[in-house]
Amino acid sequence: MGLIVQKFGGSSLATIDLVKRAARRVVETKRQGHRVITVVSARGHMTDELLDLAGQVSGAPPRRELDMLVATGEQQSVALMAMAIHALGEPAISFAAGQIGIFTDSQFTRARILNIDPRRILQELEQDRVVIVAGFQGVDEQDNITTLGRGGSDTTAVALAGVLGADLCEIYTDVDGVYTADPRVVPEARKLPSISYDEMLELASLGAAVMHSRSLEFAKKYRVPVLVRSSFQDGPGTLIVEETQEMENVVVRGAALTTDEAKLTLHQVPDRPGVAATICEHLDRHSINMDMIVQNTGEDGLTDFSFTVAKSDLPESLAAVEEAAREVGAKRISSDPNIAKVSVVGVGMRIHTGVGAKMFRALASADVNIQMISTSEIKISCVVDAADGKRALAVVHQAFRLETVGAPNDTATATGWTG
Amino acid sequence: MGLIVQKFGGSSLATIDLVKRAARRVVETKRQGHRVITVVSARGHMTDELLDLAGQVSGAPPRRELDMLVATGEQQSVALMAMAIHALGEPAISFAAGQIGIFTDSQFTRARILNIDPRRILQELEQDRVVIVAGFQGVDEQDNITTLGRGGSDTTAVALAGVLGADLCEIYTDVDGVYTADPRVVPEARKLPSISYDEMLELASLGAAVMHSRSLEFAKKYRVPVLVRSSFQDGPGTLIVEETQEMENVVVRGAALTTDEAKLTLHQVPDRPGVAATICEHLDRHSINMDMIVQNTGEDGLTDFSFTVAKSDLPESLAAVEEAAREVGAKRISSDPNIAKVSVVGVGMRIHTGVGAKMFRALASADVNIQMISTSEIKISCVVDAADGKRALAVVHQAFRLETVGAPNDTATATGWTG
Repeated sequence: MGLIVQKFGGSSLATIDLVKRAARRVVETKRQGHRVITVVSARGHMTDELLDLAGQVSGAPPRRELDMLVATGEQQSVALMAMAIHALGEPAISFAAGQIGIFTDSQFTRARILNIDPRRILQELEQDRVVIVAGFQGVDEQDNITTLGRGGSDTTAVALAGVLGADLCEIYTDVDGVYTADPRVVPEARKLPSISYDEMLELASLGAAVMHSRSLEFAKKYRVPVLVRSSFQDGPGTLIVEETQEMENVVVRGAALTTDEAKLTLHQVPDRPGVAATICEHLDRHSINMDMIVQNTGEDGLTDFSFTVAKSDLPESLAAVEEAAREVGAKRISSDPNIAKVSVVGVGMRIHTGVGAKMFRALASADVNIQMISTSEIKISCVVDAADGKRALAVVHQAFRLETVGAPNDTATATGWTG
Repeated sequence: MGLIVQKFGGSSLATIDLVKRAARRVVETKRQGHRVITVVSARGHMTDELLDLAGQVSGAPPRRELDMLVATGEQQSVALMAMAIHALGEPAISFAAGQIGIFTDSQFTRARILNIDPRRILQELEQDRVVIVAGFQGVDEQDNITTLGRGGSDTTAVALAGVLGADLCEIYTDVDGVYTADPRVVPEARKLPSISYDEMLELASLGAAVMHSRSLEFAKKYRVPVLVRSSFQDGPGTLIVEETQEMENVVVRGAALTTDEAKLTLHQVPDRPGVAATICEHLDRHSINMDMIVQNTGEDGLTDFSFTVAKSDLPESLAAVEEAAREVGAKRISSDPNIAKVSVVGVGMRIHTGVGAKMFRALASADVNIQMISTSEIKISCVVDAADGKRALAVVHQAFRLETVGAPNDTATATGWTG
């Protein structure tokens, strides 16, 4: 008999029939002899609808009140889920975050969990009840309701699993697992049976919308095994776990394409200490996140400094870069919104050599020109022309034989990746 | 500078424009120098919609979970109201019942307030904030969310006003005050400037839907002056207050017609001790509320025993009465769903004589036959044929010159009475 946390996202609860379906999953798991904690999100698009209401009331609503408002979405879900489980003959009890002591800081709309009091949950589990917890929310030390920001319900689920030492945290969602690449772009992409926290974190930052980074960091910290599964069909899903030595036998576990970035370059910047810092400080002052940053060894005391930003930040970034260019004495600025970034991720890179060469050779063989290269311990990213993006992803996927890494797909509707 | 509690019902918050209108009222009151506590209901028909959702999930949802579900309606209202007030430039903070310590018993869906902790509210008022409280809800000692049943938001408002010693509790609703009779039935009906708690309690039990009895009992107990006003237009409303000696100068303050009852009679019942008790016990066993109970002095050791019940309870009542008739030895049972009850209410009856005679004479002059009569200290009720109901109400209203009791109407849309 184990302790299992099961989390159901908004799309998995969008209709009453889906609520009942989720309840059947929970009841099945309980009847297999497990103790079950269920974490639920707001149903369907309720959070967005509530935010829209708030927007009609005020152009700048206080963030405390936004949290008070949107937290009702999850509270409705827990109550309905408790009723549905009860109707199937199993005892269940619902809780808002404040009732079971999910304590956060007071950063409304993006609070962080500080502490969870497990006592009430353990009491209820001992009474043989399914415990249903509102995801996405907490309370601060003054008992104000807070919310955890994007991916918050996953964070709640993983944090509960961690604090209570659960054997497994199941994330039921509208995708059936994590793929070697976005199957909408690469038809050969395969579903991965398992993946390490670090690999998943890299893929999440590259657009795999399966889980939000913060919840993955929690999972990694508390070593919670996370199983991502579809709520609409059966199937094994993908297990996100601690890295094993065996995992390193696979050099690359996944590949990704991102197309929402733009590139900026300061040309012929004096090659002296403090230049990079000055440029970044100007971007910081405009609250712009830089992603890839590349600077090469210079010639004649001059160098080029390039980086990428979110496409939507490009106009603001240009203003910041013009200030920076004046200050550091750059000769020229250029920018290009028509880029794509192709990346490969795998813990195997730590011990295998030649990964970069294989990737660059694959791109060259497809006549794809590489504009920028950036590497980390388990990731290599190349910026290419936007028009080459999909072709680049396909050849890289092929070069690393990723269609042999995953299991044969059990569905054709996978959408675990955002474009 | 006073302390004012302002309560807005669901119809007063049904649209975002109405929420903003209510917020303007609150801000006006605050800018007149008052401290303001605002109590709000769920918006529009949200409570019914949530109950409908619950019904789709389960035929018999646990009542704890029903409360968890419907309490979200008021929580949304407080948040939106806080945003709207904030947008008008005044600081405001919203609270669910649990956050400010509105403690109730654990009778889910019909809990009673046991205790209110005023500390957090007083702290926030001292910070010059408008305090916005979710009506209709509380928490029990285990921090489970409870709701107060029908009229619950009024009860919250009056209870807060009582505990905090507020100078006034304003109930903003979709009617503009309390009338001498239902103006839809009696066009001459006038709005009352003021009325005593006891009179209002009697009129509420006769269908004046302005406020629920339980909140009126609270108001009476804590001597909270309650002002019933329209949220849709300006106007003085009706003040519900402690009885003054002056009030007794008016014999009758209001008249009412109820048409939702049926009459049952046990004919030729042996006239001996215990008969009435036996009959009532049978009705109790079927959980049927009896309203008017009339038994006259008998002849030949036999008497007739009549009472009224809600029309919807008639079939069940007949079953109960048949059992009772066998036990007490009644000769015959009769029932009539086609009745109406005409009543007059006024504290002046305590000192004035001839009220009954005047009422009965008025009915006789209109050729209305009286089937049953029942009196209390401040009320006289007559059961008549349903077809005579409206005419009976009109002649009684005229006989007591009620069109001179109230103020001239400032609206033609009054609907303070349910049919």
